[in-house]
Amino acid sequence: MSGPRFERVALIGIGLINSSLARVLRQERLADTIVACARREATLAEARALGLCDEATTDPAAAAAGADLVVLGTPLSAYAAIAAAISGALKPGAIVTDVGSVKQAAIRDIAPSIPPHAHFVPGHPVAGTEQSGPAAGFAELFRDRWCVLTPLPDTDPAAIAAVTALWQAAGMKIVTMDPEHHDLVLAITSHLPHLIAYTIVGTATDLEEMLKSEVIKFSAGGFRDFTRIAASDPVMWRDIFLNNRDAVLEMLGRLYEDLAILQRAIRVGDGATLEAHFARTRAIRRGIVEAKQA
Amino acid sequence: MSGPRFERVALIGIGLINSSLARVLRQERLADTIVACARREATLAEARALGLCDEATTDPAAAAAGADLVVLGTPLSAYAAIAAAISGALKPGAIVTDVGSVKQAAIRDIAPSIPPHAHFVPGHPVAGTEQSGPAAGFAELFRDRWCVLTPLPDTDPAAIAAVTALWQAAGMKIVTMDPEHHDLVLAITSHLPHLIAYTIVGTATDLEEMLKSEVIKFSAGGFRDFTRIAASDPVMWRDIFLNNRDAVLEMLGRLYEDLAILQRAIRVGDGATLEAHFARTRAIRRGIVEAKQA
Repeated sequence: MSGPRFERVALIGIGLINSSLARVLRQERLADTIVACARREATLAEARALGLCDEATTDPAAAAAGADLVVLGTPLSAYAAIAAAISGALKPGAIVTDVGSVKQAAIRDIAPSIPPHAHFVPGHPVAGTEQSGPAAGFAELFRDRWCVLTPLPDTDPAAIAAVTALWQAAGMKIVTMDPEHHDLVLAITSHLPHLIAYTIVGTATDLEEMLKSEVIKFSAGGFRDFTRIAASDPVMWRDIFLNNRDAVLEMLGRLYEDLAILQRAIRVGDGATLEAHFARTRAIRRGIVEAKQA
Repeated sequence: MSGPRFERVALIGIGLINSSLARVLRQERLADTIVACARREATLAEARALGLCDEATTDPAAAAAGADLVVLGTPLSAYAAIAAAISGALKPGAIVTDVGSVKQAAIRDIAPSIPPHAHFVPGHPVAGTEQSGPAAGFAELFRDRWCVLTPLPDTDPAAIAAVTALWQAAGMKIVTMDPEHHDLVLAITSHLPHLIAYTIVGTATDLEEMLKSEVIKFSAGGFRDFTRIAASDPVMWRDIFLNNRDAVLEMLGRLYEDLAILQRAIRVGDGATLEAHFARTRAIRRGIVEAKQA
C-alpha cells in the first residue's frame, strides 16, 4: 500500500491509538523519523523497546519541533496544555491532528494555540479495544473502520488531504462532518454504552460478597461484554464524559424514557410491548451487519 | 470423552440450545434415538435435514413417550402447557430437565405435572449466542461454561447425577444452587444487560433518520456489542423478563441509583468520582479473566 510521506512525525502520547499508528508508519514506511512523547519515562522506554520510535522525549515542544506531522493521542484533559506547549515549536506548514473522541472540545482546546503558519485537522479514528498502553497497539486496529475528520471552515485543504491519506494508509474509510454532529453520534454509539457498562459492572461490584463471586463465575453473554467495555481506560473515559457532557446527558435522558417504558411493561406483565420492542432492535443489528461494522 | 447413555432422548424445542445438545449427543454417541419436537413442521424439517434427530413430531406427548430423558428447550411461556401435555406419557424413571434462564418459574410451571414415577431436574446451561433456530447450534457452545442445576429437596440423586453427566459430556462445569439465588445472579449477569442493550439500541432506532444511519455506520466498540446482544430472540427474552420480574426490577433499581451518581458527576463536572468509579470496574474484569469466563 502506498501512502503519504512524512519526514518527522511527533506522536504526543503513545497509548493504544498512537502506538498502533506508529506500527502503521513503520510498516508502510510513511515516516523518516518517529518521535514519541509521553509524561513518564517508563512509557517511553517501553515504546523504544517495542521499536515504535526513533526518538523519545517527555517534552511536547521538543517532540513537535521540526515535525511536519504532530498527532495528539492523550486523554482530552491534556490537550490545552500540550497545544500551548507545542505552539511556539511548530514549523511552517506543520500539520497538527488529534485522535480524541470529542471534537468540539478538541477544537476548543487546541485551535487557539495553532499559529497561522501551521494547520490543525481535528480527527477521530473510530477504533479501539479495552486495552491501553504502547504494548496494546497493533497495526490492524484501524482496518476497515471509519475515521471522522471535523475540519474547521478555514482549514487548509492540503492539510486535510494529508491527514486523510494518513488514515487511509492505515486502512480506514474517511468521512467529514460537523464537530457538533460527530459528538452527538458518538454520544449514542460509544459514550452512552460505555457509561452504562461502567455503571452496571459497578452495580455488580457492590453486590453482597457471595453473590459477587458468583456474578464473576457465571458471567454469561451480556455481562461479560459489559465487563470488557468497563475495563477501558478510566482517565480517557473520565475526560470524554466531562467534555461531551451535553450530548451524553441528552442521550441518557432519551435512554431513561425508553427504559421506563420497558420497566413498566415488566412490572405489569405486558409481554406484547416487550416482544415488539425486542423484535424491532433486531433490524438495526441487520443494518450493522450489512454495513460490515459487525 | 465418555458420557452417560440414553436410549431415547426427547428434545422439546429444537432451537439454539437443544440443537447444540443434539449435536453433542450425536458426537459423543450418548443417545440411541433422538426425538425432536417443535411447533412448526418447517423447524422439524430443518432439524431432520441437519441430521439432528431420528424422529420428529409436533406432539410433545408423542415425543416424550418412552423417553428416558426429556429436555425442555422452549421459551418459558410454553413450559406449563408442555409439562401438562407430556405428564401422562412419561415412563417410570423418566428424567425431565429444562434449559431455561429462570429457575423458580420453571419449577412453578413444570414440577406440578411430573408424576411420582418420573424425575424433574431443573437446569440452566449458561451458554448462548444471539442466534436462534436449529441451524445456529454447534456442539462446542457449552464447552468450559457453567451449568447451574437447581434440584428440589426431594429430587432423586440418581436423576441429578444423570443430568450432571449429560452436561459434563458437553464440556460444562456443574454447580448446584437454590433457584431463588440462581434467578438473582442471572438477573444481574444476563437479564439486566440484555434489558439495557435492548433499550439503548431501541433508543438509537428512534433517532432522526440521518443520525440513525450514521449510528449504524460508526457503531464502534460499545454500541456494536449492544446491537449483538439486542439481536437475541424476542420471545425467549420477553418470557425471561415476565418470569424473573422481581429480581430484574430489583437489579434495575440498583442500576438507577448508580447511574444517577454518575449522571450527576457528569453534569457538575466531578471528574474524581468518574475516574474512581471507572478504575474500580476494571477489577471485576480481571476477576472474570482469571476465572476464565472471558
